[in-house]
Amino acid sequence: MCELLGMECNTPTDIIFSFSGFSLRGGNTGPHSDGWGLAFYEGRAARIFLEPRPCAGSPLAKFLRGHPIKTELAIAHIRRRTRGQVALANTHPFARELWGRSWVFAHNGTVRGLRSKKLGRFAPIGSTDSERAFCLLLEGLRSGFGGYPARASELRQAIADLSAELGRNGVFNFLLGDGSCLYARCDTRLCHIVRKAPFHRATLTDDEVSVDFSTVTTPKDRVAVVATTPLTRNEVWVHGAPGSLWVFREGVLVATFASAPRPRRTRESAA
Amino acid sequence: MCELLGMECNTPTDIIFSFSGFSLRGGNTGPHSDGWGLAFYEGRAARIFLEPRPCAGSPLAKFLRGHPIKTELAIAHIRRRTRGQVALANTHPFARELWGRSWVFAHNGTVRGLRSKKLGRFAPIGSTDSERAFCLLLEGLRSGFGGYPARASELRQAIADLSAELGRNGVFNFLLGDGSCLYARCDTRLCHIVRKAPFHRATLTDDEVSVDFSTVTTPKDRVAVVATTPLTRNEVWVHGAPGSLWVFREGVLVATFASAPRPRRTRESAA
Repeated sequence: MCELLGMECNTPTDIIFSFSGFSLRGGNTGPHSDGWGLAFYEGRAARIFLEPRPCAGSPLAKFLRGHPIKTELAIAHIRRRTRGQVALANTHPFARELWGRSWVFAHNGTVRGLRSKKLGRFAPIGSTDSERAFCLLLEGLRSGFGGYPARASELRQAIADLSAELGRNGVFNFLLGDGSCLYARCDTRLCHIVRKAPFHRATLTDDEVSVDFSTVTTPKDRVAVVATTPLTRNEVWVHGAPGSLWVFREGVLVATFASAPRPRRTRESAA
Repeated sequence: MCELLGMECNTPTDIIFSFSGFSLRGGNTGPHSDGWGLAFYEGRAARIFLEPRPCAGSPLAKFLRGHPIKTELAIAHIRRRTRGQVALANTHPFARELWGRSWVFAHNGTVRGLRSKKLGRFAPIGSTDSERAFCLLLEGLRSGFGGYPARASELRQAIADLSAELGRNGVFNFLLGDGSCLYARCDTRLCHIVRKAPFHRATLTDDEVSVDFSTVTTPKDRVAVVATTPLTRNEVWVHGAPGSLWVFREGVLVATFASAPRPRRTRESAA
């Protein structure tokens, strides 16, 4: 199993505090030592740092911790392989262009039965079930819309429906970014926190490191962080319900979808 | 105008010697200070380091020089913008997946009239003529073949034909990788060298740095390097003819195509 970390905010923010604790799980406090990746969006474009080796002890991961890149949307993954060998092609996050924007995807879990589903425009480069699921998800979106949907609710519903369908046989926790929103699906394990004023001090679960967010933020800042398990020990994280999909935009949880049997939207809020 | 650097070899090789001289041109010995990128293939997958800032003086570029990544195929670019603002989305190399492999593209020059050509499967994320040309080139390949062509000569001819057509109105020097070959088009300026046994000492044009390749190679190694202008001062670089396309595979120049008026294959050799 792998671990996921996502951040979505209303102002460019560095992910280093969260990434520091998270990256220790890649071969140090956790067993996820088969690769790692960290994607940073700038508008509709993303750049992704990838390494098919343990994150803990990686000079590149250390470099990124020492040279923070501010972004409004980031997706990170550390891998413990279940399917597919240790290789760059099998290292999350994966990226594809659709409708003139980069889509970035990272998965936790294993999904079976995807090989029987017909691929469309997008083909896997590696051999993971994860990348295949991503390709099928994007093909579902592409074939369902003529372009990036003007109505956000239609896109969100489609992502919720497609992920429920694709994840039917297996475990399908994922983070998906499109440059505007972070879509976070909880199948078995995923939690989130939205940090906003008044900001407090937080301490990592995986290391003796703490930060007082009130010293590095403005009162208008909103930062949503999503992770497989809570990254801090003194904050209240919201655990996802099985089969649910959260949508974050500008640091706000703008929609929550429940899943089975057929996904239906249960709440669409601005808080 | 921008500068291009490519490397294609028969054994995993680090590009640091060439990249060291090349990166000085990004804001130091050269005026190309609007961004840079460096792509490394591992099989059919590629990872790309991108920064929308000068390469010279970049901590990330310095990190990469200090932590060499060995690869059989690399493509680098430093940008001096002519079209499109300084932004991640406009930073070369660009990448897209086609036929289950990552295609990577970097361009030197400006091509006009591309907006009148209909896009297909691939859409630009940024606003450069370069990325649009890449999208059109890939669409031409996709629509011409059902999958990655079994006959390499057909693919190479198609790339030569499409690039002659796309580059008709402007300057279209480019490097294109598909994980198997490096395609290098010379429109106005491009040169290459193939290093093989017996290896000698080479000294950079842009810095007082030299390396004795005989100490870091085996007699079977073959390393092709392509650059906008020669990177070393004591080696003989081959300058491309206007409109020509070189194809390198396993450190061998396996094909050369001439261009105008309609591209025709003039030589296909194994040396």
